[in-house]
Amino acid sequence: MTIRITGTGSYIPSNIEKNEDFYQHEFLNSDGSTINAPNEVIVEKFKAITGIGERRYAEKKLNTSDIAFFAAEKAIENAKINREDIDYIIVAHNYGDVKHNTEQSDTVPSIASRVKHLLKIQNPKCVGYDVLFGCPGWIEGVIQANAFIKSGIAKKCLVIGAETLSRVIDPHDRDSMIYSDGAGAVIVESSNEDGGIIAHETATFAFDEAHFIFFGETNKPEINDKRRYIKMYGRKIYEFAISNVPKAMKSCLDKSGVDIKDLKKILIHQANEKMDEAIVKRFYKLYNMQMPENIMPMTIGKLGNSSVATVPTLYDMILKGDLENQEINKGDIIMFASVGAGMNINAIVYKH
Amino acid sequence: MTIRITGTGSYIPSNIEKNEDFYQHEFLNSDGSTINAPNEVIVEKFKAITGIGERRYAEKKLNTSDIAFFAAEKAIENAKINREDIDYIIVAHNYGDVKHNTEQSDTVPSIASRVKHLLKIQNPKCVGYDVLFGCPGWIEGVIQANAFIKSGIAKKCLVIGAETLSRVIDPHDRDSMIYSDGAGAVIVESSNEDGGIIAHETATFAFDEAHFIFFGETNKPEINDKRRYIKMYGRKIYEFAISNVPKAMKSCLDKSGVDIKDLKKILIHQANEKMDEAIVKRFYKLYNMQMPENIMPMTIGKLGNSSVATVPTLYDMILKGDLENQEINKGDIIMFASVGAGMNINAIVYKH
Repeated sequence: MTIRITGTGSYIPSNIEKNEDFYQHEFLNSDGSTINAPNEVIVEKFKAITGIGERRYAEKKLNTSDIAFFAAEKAIENAKINREDIDYIIVAHNYGDVKHNTEQSDTVPSIASRVKHLLKIQNPKCVGYDVLFGCPGWIEGVIQANAFIKSGIAKKCLVIGAETLSRVIDPHDRDSMIYSDGAGAVIVESSNEDGGIIAHETATFAFDEAHFIFFGETNKPEINDKRRYIKMYGRKIYEFAISNVPKAMKSCLDKSGVDIKDLKKILIHQANEKMDEAIVKRFYKLYNMQMPENIMPMTIGKLGNSSVATVPTLYDMILKGDLENQEINKGDIIMFASVGAGMNINAIVYKH
Repeated sequence: MTIRITGTGSYIPSNIEKNEDFYQHEFLNSDGSTINAPNEVIVEKFKAITGIGERRYAEKKLNTSDIAFFAAEKAIENAKINREDIDYIIVAHNYGDVKHNTEQSDTVPSIASRVKHLLKIQNPKCVGYDVLFGCPGWIEGVIQANAFIKSGIAKKCLVIGAETLSRVIDPHDRDSMIYSDGAGAVIVESSNEDGGIIAHETATFAFDEAHFIFFGETNKPEINDKRRYIKMYGRKIYEFAISNVPKAMKSCLDKSGVDIKDLKKILIHQANEKMDEAIVKRFYKLYNMQMPENIMPMTIGKLGNSSVATVPTLYDMILKGDLENQEINKGDIIMFASVGAGMNINAIVYKH
């Protein structure tokens, strides 16, 4: 028995938020002090580091569960399975449904229950739950599906990553330009075909790192409400990621027995272009190699960082031919990798 | 190999909120209309149905992650394991950390990461994640731990249920008297000893039932903010539960091969005394039996409904001798069962 991804789908919101749309923002440092640069310079510098030129925001009327549902519909269709045969619906997210112009996260019922409801699945044996694991949540959901199939309690799992980060960002924080909305989904099935998940690796660093990404107040001191937003210590995260993610990727690849030269693509969480490049360069350095050209397909420039949604969206886009000069062919060995709040790191070596 | 619970712990908040403490509340119907009865009568009627005389609220300075940590410390100590050997920390909750007097759920980083941080565990291979599954979340966490151990990716898991429902209740809703705060934790391990998890069953009913428990506005029409609270359609839930939970419990017991006469205790989610009794009576009726006396230990009278925390707390209290006239002895076969938002139902047949 192998465990394979047999269908993919994604939902990319239609609203484009361009970097220029932030020119009117009042950006402040985290201590509330003024940034000594015009917004045009701040935005240019931001783009140079993150690679982000624009990002997508979900329509006001849509929530995380809605876009999760859209991606799920496509994955089910793509896998050509009967939705009533799905044993698990695993939804990775971090903030639940946050309605436009409100501040509360709505997680009861779970997003998985909402998606199951929208998919109109009747079978009560199809179990839906949510997993909170920071940005690596979707990869972790696939690892959990893998365990359920291996242990004999499931045959087909729908694993979704969906997020609307546009609803939890502080307009006075430069980092808010990173975040975007999106959803990606896959069907993971037990199979008699060759390939599938070869190895996986997960780590949680919480001793010093638990609060590197956190919920904090606005940078504007005059605003005296209690509302909190997604916040991060960017420099600490960068240092943490470039030192720990390459090692976890190596551990995963070594476990898989695959020769690094046979690795065709690395689908890494679209966190920040410079950081992602540094991670993958260091990963190859651990094998005394240069990073091969075109090994790391990127969507961050146009789509921003949609947390749990970046990896499944990227995968779906490549398979559907929506990403220029990028393809994954039958038999290709690829790696999924992610890092995010927790701080969590994970990776999967997968034979397509 | 068997999979056994080798340690338990719980945290019961010290603040007691008595039924009389609700006499000053202005209770309204969900449509905002006045209830034609004095509060003393409303509260008495509430007590007659739910069995709740008082409930516990966490101290203002504590959050869900703190009380989860307290319960976890006790479970680790009770299991006599080295905390650095834990492979997974699985935390079931529904609303994350909601600070006293605020309305936002804080779930980034995950509650599991916060607990791991507080436990001062260094080992990065100890993976922490949160599961959202309504009130049955803790039982589902045990089922997931069971799958991880069976599939070979874990040997020892810490599974916690923790919730501070006192932070998400509408003071103008009678149902708010049901909810309380608490935390329970267990260590689930692979073992060479006899016993442990014999069978489990899970179901998600989302076609018609997804929004039976939901996030809704206050019952007081004059309050014009967007704040939402935990809400439920009590009558619908009652009808749903008494018709579906007994069947799921029977399915689980039949799968286990255990004779109903050998079942020593049923540890059911402390949702509502009358409903719990009706469920267990119907369960025995499916076997043409009367409900045996003392089969269903209850804590709801003193502790209220603390969601994911009720079952592990109840289990821990019995094992520690803190519940009068209730004991579980080596070799006893018991059942854990729960129902809640999703709507989700689950059960485990377990040999102590």
